[in-house]
Amino acid sequence: MDTTKFDVLGVGNAIVDVLAKASDSFIEEQRTFGMEKGGMTLIDADRAEDLYSLMNASTEMSGGSTANTLACLASMGGKGTFIGKVADDQLGKIFSHDLQSQGIEFNTAPLVGSKATARCLVLITPDAERTMNTFLGACTELTSDDIEEDQIRESKVVYLEGYLFDPPHAKDAFYKTAAITKAAGRQLALSLSDPFCVERHRDDFKDLIFNHVDILFANQDELCALMETDFDTACDNIANKCEVAAITKGAQGSLIIKGGERTLIDSVKPEELVDTTGAGDAYAAGFLFGYTNGKDMSVCGKYGSIAAAEVISHIGPRPSKSLADLIKHI
Amino acid sequence: MDTTKFDVLGVGNAIVDVLAKASDSFIEEQRTFGMEKGGMTLIDADRAEDLYSLMNASTEMSGGSTANTLACLASMGGKGTFIGKVADDQLGKIFSHDLQSQGIEFNTAPLVGSKATARCLVLITPDAERTMNTFLGACTELTSDDIEEDQIRESKVVYLEGYLFDPPHAKDAFYKTAAITKAAGRQLALSLSDPFCVERHRDDFKDLIFNHVDILFANQDELCALMETDFDTACDNIANKCEVAAITKGAQGSLIIKGGERTLIDSVKPEELVDTTGAGDAYAAGFLFGYTNGKDMSVCGKYGSIAAAEVISHIGPRPSKSLADLIKHI
Repeated sequence: MDTTKFDVLGVGNAIVDVLAKASDSFIEEQRTFGMEKGGMTLIDADRAEDLYSLMNASTEMSGGSTANTLACLASMGGKGTFIGKVADDQLGKIFSHDLQSQGIEFNTAPLVGSKATARCLVLITPDAERTMNTFLGACTELTSDDIEEDQIRESKVVYLEGYLFDPPHAKDAFYKTAAITKAAGRQLALSLSDPFCVERHRDDFKDLIFNHVDILFANQDELCALMETDFDTACDNIANKCEVAAITKGAQGSLIIKGGERTLIDSVKPEELVDTTGAGDAYAAGFLFGYTNGKDMSVCGKYGSIAAAEVISHIGPRPSKSLADLIKHI
Repeated sequence: MDTTKFDVLGVGNAIVDVLAKASDSFIEEQRTFGMEKGGMTLIDADRAEDLYSLMNASTEMSGGSTANTLACLASMGGKGTFIGKVADDQLGKIFSHDLQSQGIEFNTAPLVGSKATARCLVLITPDAERTMNTFLGACTELTSDDIEEDQIRESKVVYLEGYLFDPPHAKDAFYKTAAITKAAGRQLALSLSDPFCVERHRDDFKDLIFNHVDILFANQDELCALMETDFDTACDNIANKCEVAAITKGAQGSLIIKGGERTLIDSVKPEELVDTTGAGDAYAAGFLFGYTNGKDMSVCGKYGSIAAAEVISHIGPRPSKSLADLIKHI
């Protein structure tokens, strides 16, 4: 009998999203500050202040890649727990509330009296694409001391976001988590997060994936960035490097590679395409909900497509409808 | 030639909305704490914490009745300025940003080191009705010292929300504003805000309306609560008590009473009815945009209906589309 308490333990950056509409020309103007349309740029506190002052009126919602995944998982009926670092401030309380209110366990001690809770300034262009600018704040103070061994043992899958390689101490926390996960006989999942993130940490990612990761999530661009080759060759090369690789291809759906077996999954058309923030996070949630419930790859992928379609149909990265209702007919 | 710099100066509570979905049974359970479906209940810091911990995952957006009106006015192309009290904290910065980013002047000194920025915990039931629970925080420290005479002289219309009668010092600010407005020969507009607010302050409101107010905004329930009679009699009695009374009737549109002249305005059907938060504020904005641009009552009302329809078609009280685009065919 399975003695785990959680379907997924997620370790990630604890971030509140600040979402505003922006024109393509604004994104273009901001390229001098390293902004890349569709990508995620790390920014410091001063730049965060400057950019915010140029942004339109915004909506605030809890975000963070892994936390978004757990929120979607919970909305499907899965049990999740989260490790991440907020500050003891208003945004930190909002972040904690939004996880806990969904029944997701979150007990990491908040940072007191220094850096503020992380914010991601998200610019949504008319094509519904999101361009992210992240001030990591308190996330840079997540350390391996924040990793609780028991939480890992109690979880079927331990899910890590590639973005965790950006804050220096979080990387240690990441490796500690991976080591305990393997020792406990649990499954390790990794999301590559962003092609630029892959560029920053390619060798570390490769080492981790080839030696420890069971389930890899990536989109086409991230996989190609990782393998430094074209998509077809990258798919051939990633097969058998980890148990499962779930590769998303936007409106073209996804491809699940499990050893020699490949499963193509259609995307689900959203009611209206409004904001792609959190699409990949939602896909991972759907996949993991299926996976931790013993479903086959085609069902796992379908759950992922349905979750992603819901999240991109409105502003913000968390579901606004019950995902359990949306998947029950499958 | 008109020397005014602003179409509307608004004085109001500076509030960030915390919006979450809730069931009707949850609202029912909370009645023991004074919650009334569709109404606004004032709550203290402890109750705010307790209620928040029971709420679903939420979205944060700047709110406050008058500030919402100014945001809609700006979206139509009007010039606005705001007086209200935030604290020097994260939510206060969000509130200020969201006004200033729309070109609305907002210079009231923030409160430092005591109460937090006000929050309104908004529960949205499946029928799209909103039930509001307001922790006034820093708003209780708005005083008549915050009222700048020049700002009043530079504005065509000075708009006050009835909710300002709740924080004790704000009432003084309110009276000071009214007196300067009349002395400067500017127009004074008042929104009754909420039937319970009318119950709390009926005599003061009557005195103000019968003696000073030029433009009154109210919905049916508020007008009936004010006049303590049925709707038709209340309409007869309010005529000639102020220059114009614009009375909203939800999906039944609105009725504008100007002396002996009555204009019926149809409502505009929203694309989808999602959240009625801010409907009255948006209507007032549309009306005032027309009024300050010399339009006749039917156009003023139509602008109001269009603004309200946009705001109720999504979560949150501020427009998500350009209202200028939506009214340009009128």
